[in-house]
Amino acid sequence: MSELANLTTMEVSALTDVDRGLNLTDGHARLFLSPEQATIVDGIPDMFAEASRRPFPEIELEAHTAFLHAIGQHSAPIGTGRILSCYSSTLATDILARALPSGATIAVLHPTFDNIADLFVTRGLKLVPLSEEALLAQEWPAPPVRAIVVTHPNNPTGLITPEGHLRSLAEHAARHGQIVIIDASFRGQVRDAQYDTYAVLDAAGADWVVIEDTGKLWPVHELKIGLLAYSEGLDLPIERAFSESLLAASPVVLQLVRALAEDWGKGGYERARDLVEGNRAAVRAAIEPAGLRLADPHSQISVARIELPPDGPDSSLLYKDLVGRGVHVLPCAPFHWADPATGLRLIRVSLARPHETVETGARTLAKAYLELSAS
Amino acid sequence: MSELANLTTMEVSALTDVDRGLNLTDGHARLFLSPEQATIVDGIPDMFAEASRRPFPEIELEAHTAFLHAIGQHSAPIGTGRILSCYSSTLATDILARALPSGATIAVLHPTFDNIADLFVTRGLKLVPLSEEALLAQEWPAPPVRAIVVTHPNNPTGLITPEGHLRSLAEHAARHGQIVIIDASFRGQVRDAQYDTYAVLDAAGADWVVIEDTGKLWPVHELKIGLLAYSEGLDLPIERAFSESLLAASPVVLQLVRALAEDWGKGGYERARDLVEGNRAAVRAAIEPAGLRLADPHSQISVARIELPPDGPDSSLLYKDLVGRGVHVLPCAPFHWADPATGLRLIRVSLARPHETVETGARTLAKAYLELSAS
Repeated sequence: MSELANLTTMEVSALTDVDRGLNLTDGHARLFLSPEQATIVDGIPDMFAEASRRPFPEIELEAHTAFLHAIGQHSAPIGTGRILSCYSSTLATDILARALPSGATIAVLHPTFDNIADLFVTRGLKLVPLSEEALLAQEWPAPPVRAIVVTHPNNPTGLITPEGHLRSLAEHAARHGQIVIIDASFRGQVRDAQYDTYAVLDAAGADWVVIEDTGKLWPVHELKIGLLAYSEGLDLPIERAFSESLLAASPVVLQLVRALAEDWGKGGYERARDLVEGNRAAVRAAIEPAGLRLADPHSQISVARIELPPDGPDSSLLYKDLVGRGVHVLPCAPFHWADPATGLRLIRVSLARPHETVETGARTLAKAYLELSAS
Repeated sequence: MSELANLTTMEVSALTDVDRGLNLTDGHARLFLSPEQATIVDGIPDMFAEASRRPFPEIELEAHTAFLHAIGQHSAPIGTGRILSCYSSTLATDILARALPSGATIAVLHPTFDNIADLFVTRGLKLVPLSEEALLAQEWPAPPVRAIVVTHPNNPTGLITPEGHLRSLAEHAARHGQIVIIDASFRGQVRDAQYDTYAVLDAAGADWVVIEDTGKLWPVHELKIGLLAYSEGLDLPIERAFSESLLAASPVVLQLVRALAEDWGKGGYERARDLVEGNRAAVRAAIEPAGLRLADPHSQISVARIELPPDGPDSSLLYKDLVGRGVHVLPCAPFHWADPATGLRLIRVSLARPHETVETGARTLAKAYLELSAS
């Protein structure tokens, strides 16, 4: 794989495919607005007026409250100044990476979206993988590991860190002076991941940083917020790093987030989940006749991994073949940032797309796989 | 000054002042929408529909064309793939800083907004100052300086790099294998800075990077785009660095930029300039009776520096006193990142505010200065 081929560059090339192929790469919601969401979007011009009339901190506080309560995070430090609104969860991660002591060793869940690992490496941190098996066995890394990064639910596998496991991790970290870092960017999609993370972390007395994201939930064309929250007394220069990156998120976007979060609690969540699960079923139905299967049949997030048998073409070949057919998916090797070969038999497709798009994409994938296998 | 007191942290504290003091800190346009702009904002819901219907590259191309043509940049590499749309000019700068070879020495205009210097330092670059006097004398730094960064027009002084000077710099850089970096974030405000920079740079055969910004022009509550453009054959991993930071800017914001840029060419520019110049005159009228003067009376950008006499209170004292009176401005020492003491007699106020806000702020500043001098 060339130096350029991280997952985001493949997503960019799908987005900029001028022939407008089927884009099943990124985890963003590329859907039409629901009637409820369309009504909210119609109110954006009023949000401009409101942003001029009212103090920014009030607007921000309302957005934090609505969003964090809609996803079950009632113990988040709302109103304390310890939740920073960033343009995106990627930027929140980068701000955190800059605030961590350069040269420190951190453990990062493996596999996970390569961008998370890349941002930490670029800021001079040393990474060691924490496998999903180790997480499930509650085998936590000892010092000199300074911080432990868990994506919850994990992308691409959908693995949810159970509440008891998080408690165990937080108590371990508190004992050893480590920092627990949770990237909860996909949490909004999965009720089972919405237990009150902040209560667990605070009860254990651990230092922690949590990243939340509105960017994977709604079809709002990148008008999103990444939240960077941290524990009281955390000794990292996070505010300084934040001030290097931005002055403030948009008060218009914060109002949009508030309104969409309120809708999320009034049926929006169920509507989105039903669409995603319908699409997951469509992928399964399309691929099983070709001898392929879902790698994570119980995943609830808006992407699905497809497992390729060991004797057929690998995901790198299938990816390239599909690009030729105008269907963009993601080969999974880059998710396995510490050992790409272990991801070679997996391919990821996005489910937050119109049903016909997913169905057509999955059928094309099955057909391509069969033709490649036969050739 | 504490480690935390960079200019942005002072701007954040003005923004989050819950008593809603007068905020004359940042260079963003904090104004009410003009009737023409309000009509454009009313169209945002339609821009959502358009973003779902049309390919992203088309929407992006139209925004680049409208914006760059509205500010005179007819030779910008529109449509070549060498203009990247970022969430902000700060993010564009950080992406560039990451792509430059770590440890390299770069010359940066001095004084200039401290964030520009900070972002390069944080990414491991070594900085040397290029004074405005050296720029005006066309004394360009020799290797080992690898790149030369010029803010055009400069913030906070308003200095415009004349076309002939840019040509001299570009020819010098081409001879010595250096990269010319132009931060043109305030260019949209000043016709004299809108000569075709890209034509000059390309004619000299220099490697170059240019950052453009829509964020200082319109009261759009952070719905903005920073553009990162670069010369053909530039040997820096800019696309890779971009992919670490974002997938894509918002197609809704790109459509908003396009519409506002078209209005900018049809009277919007003149309306905004008249307001800023009226505010500059109001500041001058308020401060001169107190023995203060504008440091840059011919500046055309939306901030003004006020020079304090050598025998009175300095800007650090005056800044603190004004915060106590609910008026937020910026002391200029941090702009002088290589030698803060040289900025101690200067204070910066923003002019892109409603007229009454600027007038009240300037009067309070003059009163505070007189009272501090007498005490």
